[in-house]
Amino acid sequence: MKNLFANRVLNNDTSDLNEIFKNSANPENISFAGGFPDNRLFPDHDLKTAYQNAISQDGQAIFQYASTQGLPALRQKLANRMATCAGVHVDADNVMLTQGGQQAIDLVAKLLLNRGDAMAVEGPTYMGALAAFDTYEPTYYEIPVDQDGMDVHYLKNTLKAHPEIKLIYTVPDFHNPTGTTMSLRRRQALVALANQYDVIILEDSPYRDLRYSGKNLPAIKHFDTEGRVIFISSFSKILSPALRTGWLVADDEIMTELIGLKSAIDVQSPNVTLAAINSYLDHHDIDHHIANINAAYRVKRDAMLNALDRYFPASVTYTRPAGGFFIWVSLPQGIDAQQLLRDVVLPQAHVAYVPASCQFASRQVTNGFRLNFTSLDPITITTGVKRLGAILHNVTTNTTVKVGAQL
Amino acid sequence: MKNLFANRVLNNDTSDLNEIFKNSANPENISFAGGFPDNRLFPDHDLKTAYQNAISQDGQAIFQYASTQGLPALRQKLANRMATCAGVHVDADNVMLTQGGQQAIDLVAKLLLNRGDAMAVEGPTYMGALAAFDTYEPTYYEIPVDQDGMDVHYLKNTLKAHPEIKLIYTVPDFHNPTGTTMSLRRRQALVALANQYDVIILEDSPYRDLRYSGKNLPAIKHFDTEGRVIFISSFSKILSPALRTGWLVADDEIMTELIGLKSAIDVQSPNVTLAAINSYLDHHDIDHHIANINAAYRVKRDAMLNALDRYFPASVTYTRPAGGFFIWVSLPQGIDAQQLLRDVVLPQAHVAYVPASCQFASRQVTNGFRLNFTSLDPITITTGVKRLGAILHNVTTNTTVKVGAQL
Repeated sequence: MKNLFANRVLNNDTSDLNEIFKNSANPENISFAGGFPDNRLFPDHDLKTAYQNAISQDGQAIFQYASTQGLPALRQKLANRMATCAGVHVDADNVMLTQGGQQAIDLVAKLLLNRGDAMAVEGPTYMGALAAFDTYEPTYYEIPVDQDGMDVHYLKNTLKAHPEIKLIYTVPDFHNPTGTTMSLRRRQALVALANQYDVIILEDSPYRDLRYSGKNLPAIKHFDTEGRVIFISSFSKILSPALRTGWLVADDEIMTELIGLKSAIDVQSPNVTLAAINSYLDHHDIDHHIANINAAYRVKRDAMLNALDRYFPASVTYTRPAGGFFIWVSLPQGIDAQQLLRDVVLPQAHVAYVPASCQFASRQVTNGFRLNFTSLDPITITTGVKRLGAILHNVTTNTTVKVGAQL
Repeated sequence: MKNLFANRVLNNDTSDLNEIFKNSANPENISFAGGFPDNRLFPDHDLKTAYQNAISQDGQAIFQYASTQGLPALRQKLANRMATCAGVHVDADNVMLTQGGQQAIDLVAKLLLNRGDAMAVEGPTYMGALAAFDTYEPTYYEIPVDQDGMDVHYLKNTLKAHPEIKLIYTVPDFHNPTGTTMSLRRRQALVALANQYDVIILEDSPYRDLRYSGKNLPAIKHFDTEGRVIFISSFSKILSPALRTGWLVADDEIMTELIGLKSAIDVQSPNVTLAAINSYLDHHDIDHHIANINAAYRVKRDAMLNALDRYFPASVTYTRPAGGFFIWVSLPQGIDAQQLLRDVVLPQAHVAYVPASCQFASRQVTNGFRLNFTSLDPITITTGVKRLGAILHNVTTNTTVKVGAQL
């Protein structure tokens, strides 16, 4: 049947990555690869009650078709939350509920990208966003990331050289995969550049509330003067990913088109789920729940940073995130993290991570990897990092260790 | 921002249709427009218990990320059901759970269609499928439908003239919008044509179980010899649309690619919902529930047919479906059902239907409309048809009635 498949599928070989994730899922391995919340933090009893209450309250009507944009009461709560937590003042009509943040990314790509259209992404960036964008076959321009987030000076030069760029995708808060946060100054500069070069910014912020030290910054959307910023977040990391509920904030002109596209994609999100989340928020202080999550994740992050400080060789560097799910590790030039994973780390150390290459649109950077610290307990984190450190000491000091053909 | 939108959005003006649906939703009108199940048939108590049982049984683990393809236990139940109810023998690995049947349509379009690629659709066809396909900008070839479903002789000539056609979309069981069912002979002929011309068939069958007289036919997929048929169905019409849960059946090569695309679109369907449906099926006989639905819908269909027989003029014809949700009405040539709706039927009779034009890929056929009979009670159905009949008597006999510019 392959002869009948579209180019977007034929040009996309993800078999290497699938193999990695298959091996990572092996319970004999310590996996830092996934971006999973800790199971033990899900409020299962409260959510069970929320489903019961929602169904009892609405009765049979809850099971009927409903609005494509999503339950108005829940959208109003999110509009309120956007004001208090992100400095973004919008109506419920500017909020849409989506199947996790992922669907919101797909919707925005569908709204904007013809085949070959130009867009800017951070390098590295969220690999799931690349998977969504890839299916619209854009031309990517990669913008480096440092401790203050996307390099806006580099971005400016890229926009000057490529004024055809339509869309900038960024994860400004506790960036996936590096964990860094975009500075206030850069947020303002980014909006100014978008205005100047007539570009839309997609601000993807699922980790925003998961801060373990310091204070939150206003969203990029807070600085939006021309309705150019589309903001995305999700209940996946603060409540549960199995609810598959995210939200998107956009101005009217964009929202109208996105609702039309969502209707064609899946008609609407599951009303029962939305009503259950709404009932949960009616009866519980989600900020109290988030504070509990943050206390637990802070311990895990510290455990990983302590282990990295203790067990990793000096030639290997890593980020020190103030929140989120991930730490980014940079290896000396010439080490291919994917080969190292397949040939040494998985078979010898029984540890998994996500190698750099699949997190760059260019697929050209290989000497780095992403570590997740939220899904495992501190002892397992320490054990895994210690094992990984031993391998890295070998490969960075002992050139007789063979890693594929490259070393 | 319009200058930044993709062609798929710019080329798609749905404002007329949105206006119609907005007016249809006005509770002062009797709306035959929507394709809604009857609220009073949703098993709300049983589904509430199913959510409780599923969450109690799995605890916190139910709220974690899960499989993109969907809950294995539910996929196994659907594989079993495909054998007993549709004559299709597949493994659970050949079943994927989707966000309603709608997402399955979008996924198949994404798998196959480059911009401009050729596909065949019934005329008329399900307007939501056209909305999904439209975003991939295909070239449509329209195949007429009669009492035995898609005209396969016409299809054969179209395939001969356009061997570049990749995909045939059909609703074989109680077709949306005409209510007709494809004959056994045509199902076999369709598969033979697909084999001969190297085409994939998308068999969309959400109404399959809703039969009010006669016996079910095997699915088109039953006759598939080369893995060319992708079968879709849904819990929307037999359990609840608010669960947003459909399923897709495909052979391995196609399934592998569809899982990759689903992962990029929304990662996975909500595990809590899938587990609740699985629990419902563990504790209840869904065929008993479907029999209750069918008994209620049979009465509604008969009420509508009786009213049509009584109140519609002889120059207006309509289908007599053996199941499903819809009856198709054909008006004399020259009557534009959309103008009639806007100018006369809505403002004077306070009745709504879905006019023909938006249900044809060509948008060229105007003298017909779709009536839904499942969402209203028999008395309201009769009242609405009577009012509609009075208007139709006027426009078909009295040329002084002005309907826009056309009459």
